[in-house]
Amino acid sequence: MKFASFTHAGRPSYGLVTDQGLVDLSSRFPDAPTLRTFIAGGLERAAAVSEASADYALADVVLGPVIPDPDKIVCVGLNYHDHVNETGRTVTPNPMLFARYPGSQVGSGEAMVKPLESDEFDYEGELAVIIGKPGRRISEADALSHVAGYACYNDGSVRDWQRHTSQFMPGKTFAATGGFGPWMVSADEIPDPTVLTLTTRLNGEQVQRTTVDLMITPIPTLIAYTSTILPLLPGDVIVSGTPGGVGARRTPKLFMKNGDVVEVEVSGIGILRNPVVAEH
Amino acid sequence: MKFASFTHAGRPSYGLVTDQGLVDLSSRFPDAPTLRTFIAGGLERAAAVSEASADYALADVVLGPVIPDPDKIVCVGLNYHDHVNETGRTVTPNPMLFARYPGSQVGSGEAMVKPLESDEFDYEGELAVIIGKPGRRISEADALSHVAGYACYNDGSVRDWQRHTSQFMPGKTFAATGGFGPWMVSADEIPDPTVLTLTTRLNGEQVQRTTVDLMITPIPTLIAYTSTILPLLPGDVIVSGTPGGVGARRTPKLFMKNGDVVEVEVSGIGILRNPVVAEH
Repeated sequence: MKFASFTHAGRPSYGLVTDQGLVDLSSRFPDAPTLRTFIAGGLERAAAVSEASADYALADVVLGPVIPDPDKIVCVGLNYHDHVNETGRTVTPNPMLFARYPGSQVGSGEAMVKPLESDEFDYEGELAVIIGKPGRRISEADALSHVAGYACYNDGSVRDWQRHTSQFMPGKTFAATGGFGPWMVSADEIPDPTVLTLTTRLNGEQVQRTTVDLMITPIPTLIAYTSTILPLLPGDVIVSGTPGGVGARRTPKLFMKNGDVVEVEVSGIGILRNPVVAEH
Repeated sequence: MKFASFTHAGRPSYGLVTDQGLVDLSSRFPDAPTLRTFIAGGLERAAAVSEASADYALADVVLGPVIPDPDKIVCVGLNYHDHVNETGRTVTPNPMLFARYPGSQVGSGEAMVKPLESDEFDYEGELAVIIGKPGRRISEADALSHVAGYACYNDGSVRDWQRHTSQFMPGKTFAATGGFGPWMVSADEIPDPTVLTLTTRLNGEQVQRTTVDLMITPIPTLIAYTSTILPLLPGDVIVSGTPGGVGARRTPKLFMKNGDVVEVEVSGIGILRNPVVAEH
């Protein structure tokens, strides 16, 4: 099943994405006002309405970030060898984690915003892992059973601010820089995420491509490590790292500018597509 | 005025701290179920009930983190020269920011927890700045008008996990490591935070002491810089950095262990006191 968060006629909601459009879930499950709370209550509840006729056409809603209000977004740095190599850094024995704040996210179709303060706005196509079942110190063996589903993420990065100090966070959490969508595909449809392929395109041209099996720290280990630090909760998002090909490491550099269109596609999930708008 | 978040007989609430005890505010302001939402609606509303008789004695409640559910907690690294010097690092032209997740916080009196995975659990006494008025790209001149109030913070740090990679976050957000309390003193009572004195004590012995005017990046600049990245919202917390004297940089090293009591005191605010409990 596919789940999306959206706004219809100004009302925030979420629902099931079917061939016909969107089946609204917030009206059918009033105890769960958001997709995050619906995940906490159990995704399987959606099966009962999966044959319902669509309430809205996809064209009639504005998609939002898949989870607009996660308790935490955990980003992973340097998790593909080709990206480690292009940065000139080295592989670390433990995963490199940093945070993005929820308010920095946008949905598919919404603008990713190049801030006034920088001309180094870069794309990073990534696979987002969305937690379903809460847990602390989750074992690697159990980890995938804690996943609600998967989505595409564009960890839009303001490179000069990322390098202001050793800590990446300022460059990783500017307003409207984190694309998250178009929807979550539930984990039952992706029993093995390592078979997925991730592609990033800028203005239609492929700029990143990897298979997810090339991840250095695989998803079960990321879940085990992160949940050792503090409990993972339903709706938490692990943004699992970007492959090589980022704009900052190209010659010449390739940063995003006003009018560009950036896409992150993951096989079996869909395409996250965002226009780029420069603040002025 | 002093504002605290607390639990009474299992019910989470918040209120005004008076000489007699706690005046419950969530029951008087049902539109604001939490201190964060009360701050968003305007602290001045509490003046009307400041003469009310106390609903609870302080001894009858469990204090929680001042803001249990901030949209963001922004921590500042290396913001006092004596701490920069003891770490062997150098002052950066821009402030060093990293994140802590809200679920890692505890209130005054609650245990700070040394995790199973580490014997390097360290204290960091800090001044917490709590945002009242939202804003983006707030000017330094206006910055203090966006502050709701101030509290004590103990940015409890798991040093080995902080050093797993270049990114500090994993060591800075273990469950029950961020002490935040005992309450917020509203900004009208602290027109100039640089006159404050910050002291940390471990088992009664002073281990850190500074005046806040020694901060490298002052509070107005921290607010201006952070709000350039993304909007600051009511209840957001800026944890403004620790002075010299941390346990990891002492000879011999001085880490917190089961049975210890750690206190962070800020003049004009109060004492955040936490027992240390080791997981086993």
